[in-house]
Amino acid sequence: MITLYAADSPNVVKIHLALEEMGLAYRTVPIDVMAGETFAPDFLRINPNGKVPVIVDETGSTGGPVTIFESGAILIYLAEKTGMFLPTDAVERYQTLQWLMVQMSGLGPILGQFVHFRLFAPVPDDYALSRYTTLTRRVLDALETRLGDAPWLGGSDYSIADMATFPWIRPLARLFGPEIDDDYPRLTQWVERIGARPATARALDAVEAVGRLTTPPGEASPENRDKVFGRGAYARTPA
Amino acid sequence: MITLYAADSPNVVKIHLALEEMGLAYRTVPIDVMAGETFAPDFLRINPNGKVPVIVDETGSTGGPVTIFESGAILIYLAEKTGMFLPTDAVERYQTLQWLMVQMSGLGPILGQFVHFRLFAPVPDDYALSRYTTLTRRVLDALETRLGDAPWLGGSDYSIADMATFPWIRPLARLFGPEIDDDYPRLTQWVERIGARPATARALDAVEAVGRLTTPPGEASPENRDKVFGRGAYARTPA
Repeated sequence: MITLYAADSPNVVKIHLALEEMGLAYRTVPIDVMAGETFAPDFLRINPNGKVPVIVDETGSTGGPVTIFESGAILIYLAEKTGMFLPTDAVERYQTLQWLMVQMSGLGPILGQFVHFRLFAPVPDDYALSRYTTLTRRVLDALETRLGDAPWLGGSDYSIADMATFPWIRPLARLFGPEIDDDYPRLTQWVERIGARPATARALDAVEAVGRLTTPPGEASPENRDKVFGRGAYARTPA
Repeated sequence: MITLYAADSPNVVKIHLALEEMGLAYRTVPIDVMAGETFAPDFLRINPNGKVPVIVDETGSTGGPVTIFESGAILIYLAEKTGMFLPTDAVERYQTLQWLMVQMSGLGPILGQFVHFRLFAPVPDDYALSRYTTLTRRVLDALETRLGDAPWLGGSDYSIADMATFPWIRPLARLFGPEIDDDYPRLTQWVERIGARPATARALDAVEAVGRLTTPPGEASPENRDKVFGRGAYARTPA
């Protein structure tokens, strides 16, 4: 049995997608980020970096339980445990890993900064918004190019690279306006294909259930919001 | 023979470290980022995401040449090609991958934003600087905790997780002031241990040679600087 420490955030959606696609038995433990739970000593013991998702696999490949954090590492672990969604063919294996890394190092962090400055920064910051819009579009351009060469990010089959990227592409129209879909027709069609998979529907239902049990940012205390966003009194200023 | 498309940036240092440690034959092709070379069609054909490092391995595991971008994917590729610096023991393998991901998704992108707002943003932005200082220190706290549990990030041995992280930790004192070392004694001592390795000295020499052949940010044209940093006329504004 696998335990998934979860919130209703894109990085957790990835893991629900993988677990549902792979047919692995799991239970979900909601972590209320906006109530400060990722800063609690008990949680920091399983992830000193204070982030969800984390999994604990009681029957890990070593026999004993194994704890893994970072969504990208969890996806590789689950793919290697089951032999699914990460090609063994050398070329497609590393194409899958490189597009997984584009999501981990580029799309996620950069779009994350856009979302922060768009929705949560206390004062408007046109420079930051413009910068992160440009850098987000640059990654989207690369993804659109890739989907002109292959049906899926890793190559010929749906893989952990797609699972990692889907939750960050899905909300684009909500963030940038519906006309952004016109600029990225292949990505838009790729989102529809993933959205139509039965495992995706089950994963999104599971994420919604977690969302109902945790505090939305708008209802968090100012202290917790500042702490999560790295701002305000909690922020240490540069030397 | 491996060809490494390189600049003198932290993500490229990682690959020099790995190639030197593994004793792999390689040649370096300098890419002048600040002269706009990562935006050239020829370069975008090998990496549609327009970033260094990229490697081309003429004798890839498939027999034919293989092209890989994203430093994290290249590190996994080189480790699996040589059987070095990524443990085969299941527990340490995924510990190595998870700390590699902490660097790829957290330390690198977040410290990268700090550097941008500290050195390259056109107007002072105290909010952004405070936010990225806090978030950088949060990752540093996690790394310091990890090095209290194990001598290396992946566990008992030097690994690709350390190689990924070292180039981003080395400049901390220059960015935040020398007193930051006092807050992170284990990280400081870990940097010294890596710095003392003969392969590290060779890698840093190779990176310095690339730096002498490429344009420093201060000497780039305003157009290229804006393009690289995602700002100014090149920036598309949000809908």
